Amino acid sequence: MIRRGSQVITRLGHTRALPGPFCVLPRLDVASVYSSSTDALISQFCLGKEGLKDYAVPNASWCPDMLSLYHEYLEKTKSDGWFKLPSFKSNREHIQGFQLPSAFKVTSDKKDWRNFTRGIQVEGQGYEYVIFFQPTKKKSVCLFQPGPFLEGPPGFAHGGSLAAMMDETYSKTAYLAGEGLFTLTLNIKFKHLIPVGSLAVLNVEVDKIEDQKLYLSCVTQSQDQQTLYAKSSSVFIRLPLEKESPQ
Amino acid sequence: MIRRGSQVITRLGHTRALPGPFCVLPRLDVASVYSSSTDALISQFCLGKEGLKDYAVPNASWCPDMLSLYHEYLEKTKSDGWFKLPSFKSNREHIQGFQLPSAFKVTSDKKDWRNFTRGIQVEGQGYEYVIFFQPTKKKSVCLFQPGPFLEGPPGFAHGGSLAAMMDETYSKTAYLAGEGLFTLTLNIKFKHLIPVGSLAVLNVEVDKIEDQKLYLSCVTQSQDQQTLYAKSSSVFIRLPLEKESPQ
Repeated sequence: MIRRGSQVITRLGHTRALPGPFCVLPRLDVASVYSSSTDALISQFCLGKEGLKDYAVPNASWCPDMLSLYHEYLEKTKSDGWFKLPSFKSNREHIQGFQLPSAFKVTSDKKDWRNFTRGIQVEGQGYEYVIFFQPTKKKSVCLFQPGPFLEGPPGFAHGGSLAAMMDETYSKTAYLAGEGLFTLTLNIKFKHLIPVGSLAVLNVEVDKIEDQKLYLSCVTQSQDQQTLYAKSSSVFIRLPLEKESPQ
Repeated sequence: MIRRGSQVITRLGHTRALPGPFCVLPRLDVASVYSSSTDALISQFCLGKEGLKDYAVPNASWCPDMLSLYHEYLEKTKSDGWFKLPSFKSNREHIQGFQLPSAFKVTSDKKDWRNFTRGIQVEGQGYEYVIFFQPTKKKSVCLFQPGPFLEGPPGFAHGGSLAAMMDETYSKTAYLAGEGLFTLTLNIKFKHLIPVGSLAVLNVEVDKIEDQKLYLSCVTQSQDQQTLYAKSSSVFIRLPLEKESPQ
């Protein structure tokens, strides 16, 4: 994978300046570039990360609906091929040992980084969510409970907070399903407002994978499926990570 | 405006359950419903709010580019008809004395609410932004500096954080330009990643207003306009606020 990653970057280097418009990538030899198995990606992204704090676990702020559905999906990890994805403070922890392709690196002296959806740290105030992934069916379910610091219209979640939750669920799904690394497009139709403190369930599916692009869609509903909150679709560009160079 | 707001709600009441799919609103007598002048909306939303903390002012975390462009637009407020929009902790403070239409109200015992884009409170860690609005041209400029708690790919802003910044700028622009209250659609094409700590400039325009819908578009670029970060478009539904009922 490492060599193949370097090949991609070498080819990209001819066509664009850093960090480059990733929507006009040159044609790649797809079969030779994307060959990491989903098992390997899950292992790299989720497993063997003992000692890192996982934020995608129940806490006192979770509403009964969220807790109940969490345990329902947790049961499915034992027999139905589902994985509960851990959620660390930063994507740097998820990809330990790997890094973005060279063309997308920036230098910075900042020490404390947080993934956007884990930026508000007090339990229950911001994002409460957990993502389950089913590799065979290439689908994910995200249980999302917006807190009072995610408000838009009084009493309801900000449309942008749902957009970000979709993008986050898409990004984890796209990476594990086929090395989808960056969002190219995100199209959302909002149907109902989500009350703060309630549970919204995002059902994400990979619709197709074609060459360098991965196409996904998402339906966001109430737990009882009686209220449709939003529908969306997204396209990701596929790029393998590189092996991190020694410090 | 109050009576007209009630008319809207009365009519809406016949067609949907709370809080109702705002994408299938019944036909309204537009001329009679939306007649608040932009001056009145600006006055209601922005002015006479002494004593409330405005977060859209420079602090030590702002990069020189952001500070410089802030002062440039501040000059335009003196002669070119631009307004610097204040940014309070919650939209509840922006609409003091008014409330969402009855169909969109929820009860809650939560005391501390924050607008999503003001949810991370330490200066420089989360969203740093300021929006300027030009009512005659129906356009806005948002100066946006993402902090390290808005990270997605290591070193870059999460795509969802830009989506939310767009939605926030759209929502303020849509409301002041024509009582656009809720996002119906948001379509984004991402072109480049925004490095954390750098300045991105969002240029939002109202493309057209037709009956109950308000159509907007946004181009997000670097300050020197050499890097296009993203393009997007959005549609808002127009609904007047109601006068708040006495407690």
